[in-house]
Amino acid sequence: MSLIHTIDKLEAWFGYKDRQNKTLGFVPTMGYLHEGHLSLIKAAKSENDLVVVSVFVNPTQFSPGEDLESYPRDIDRDYRLAYEAGADVVFNPETDEIYMPGSSTAVEVVGEFTKKLCGASRPTHFKGVTTVVNILFNIVKPDKAYFGQKDAQQAFIIKKMVRDLHMPVEVVICPIVRESDGLAMSSRNVYLSSEERKQATSLNKGLQKAEEYLKSGIAGCGSVEKLIEIIEGTIKSQNLGVIDYVQILDAETLGDIATIEPGKKALVAVAVKFGNTRLIDNRVLSIEKGI
Amino acid sequence: MSLIHTIDKLEAWFGYKDRQNKTLGFVPTMGYLHEGHLSLIKAAKSENDLVVVSVFVNPTQFSPGEDLESYPRDIDRDYRLAYEAGADVVFNPETDEIYMPGSSTAVEVVGEFTKKLCGASRPTHFKGVTTVVNILFNIVKPDKAYFGQKDAQQAFIIKKMVRDLHMPVEVVICPIVRESDGLAMSSRNVYLSSEERKQATSLNKGLQKAEEYLKSGIAGCGSVEKLIEIIEGTIKSQNLGVIDYVQILDAETLGDIATIEPGKKALVAVAVKFGNTRLIDNRVLSIEKGI
Repeated sequence: MSLIHTIDKLEAWFGYKDRQNKTLGFVPTMGYLHEGHLSLIKAAKSENDLVVVSVFVNPTQFSPGEDLESYPRDIDRDYRLAYEAGADVVFNPETDEIYMPGSSTAVEVVGEFTKKLCGASRPTHFKGVTTVVNILFNIVKPDKAYFGQKDAQQAFIIKKMVRDLHMPVEVVICPIVRESDGLAMSSRNVYLSSEERKQATSLNKGLQKAEEYLKSGIAGCGSVEKLIEIIEGTIKSQNLGVIDYVQILDAETLGDIATIEPGKKALVAVAVKFGNTRLIDNRVLSIEKGI
Repeated sequence: MSLIHTIDKLEAWFGYKDRQNKTLGFVPTMGYLHEGHLSLIKAAKSENDLVVVSVFVNPTQFSPGEDLESYPRDIDRDYRLAYEAGADVVFNPETDEIYMPGSSTAVEVVGEFTKKLCGASRPTHFKGVTTVVNILFNIVKPDKAYFGQKDAQQAFIIKKMVRDLHMPVEVVICPIVRESDGLAMSSRNVYLSSEERKQATSLNKGLQKAEEYLKSGIAGCGSVEKLIEIIEGTIKSQNLGVIDYVQILDAETLGDIATIEPGKKALVAVAVKFGNTRLIDNRVLSIEKGI
């Protein structure tokens, strides 16, 4: 297990480990690892000879006024947790190792689906994500790369970038990992006050109620308008969360839908602010086709 | 030697040739090969175990109203010439093999230097170039890729993309190849009428006169204004060429300069239209530092 800060040393390590004849799984993170990240590392470990975890708080995916400076960091803890989960390397570069001075190339997935959900309130966010993931893929050259379903739109956009640019990597999306009370794991959960932390379970509760309603089979249970009303009602029944969005989209295209049709998958996604802390959560829901 | 139209067959060929343990040189072209292209293929052959030449007229680097439809094509001739020059494979994909249906990811090098020279009159051109070259690099995974100095701004931008995105490929720029009368080789030269063809030598003549003036050592010989005047005068002394630009920039940055300072390299670049045919040419000039 190695903690590596530069591309040169990472490449030397690849040479030492005969990387060319081994499969490599890659887990790109912004650090402050939680059980969600660790599930990705474990998945990578189970499917590859070598596992590289990157810890890089990418400035280009933050907008001015967001939490770039205060984003939680603890590389010693990350290193220990990544090691315990099965990582062979933690790659923790400085910003100018990734973005060399004068760097000005961007990779952007263009389309209506980038302007919805988190793209609406964070308009430059995904361009920063695709650019840094593209760079990290070029540096690490993984066979498989692992991302969490919690960032559903990010997962969709990265898969699209890889497909459109024919990048030689397989993108694997792993399920959301939750706290025992259902809150989706997030590095930003540490920002929450104890009362906010309690109320933050309303995201998952709203999604759960929507799922129950959808599965109830009562007439009109696939209505997007009705399902959004249920989720918004659940979140608003508490007093601290301010809804950024509750949206239901076709899970395959992120296109708008009015009804969840039997046999089709829908992405039900929410973003709620508690003070300055913005939390997201989602479920992919569907109802079976009748006989 | 193989003519391959699909990515699947290219990958099968890589497997058959044990590509992983060989060095691979790549020459991306839009076909209708001339001696300039062949010099790139020969350079690739001399430095690599395997050479792949792509022939792909990339629609995204043409603007509406440009010559996408009429761009000269002759794949049989290209295949024969590439073979004679030392290529192992000509990769000639259909458009939807490169840009899959629904494809919407772009790679863009951003900066003032993209808006000068050809970027001024062809504002979407380089975004198309960087996107397709990025895709082709991901498909072919070359160790080295070869481009011509004739497209000086393109060469600059591709090198920048590769550097900024840490793409695992070395970009090699080869000298301009000229007809016996000095006209730079170009697939578009076939568009010229015989009178236009004669007058088209004025691009190179203008550059040559500028070089002679710069090397004369007379006071003020590094003046960009004066050098441009000399080139424009040479081109305008004929009646058919319409100047798109004559520009002199710092060759390392493509930044503006007023004087070619001793010890610094300058890119002296011209674009001239003969009817609908737009020709470009350039020289990198410098004067030695005094003692």
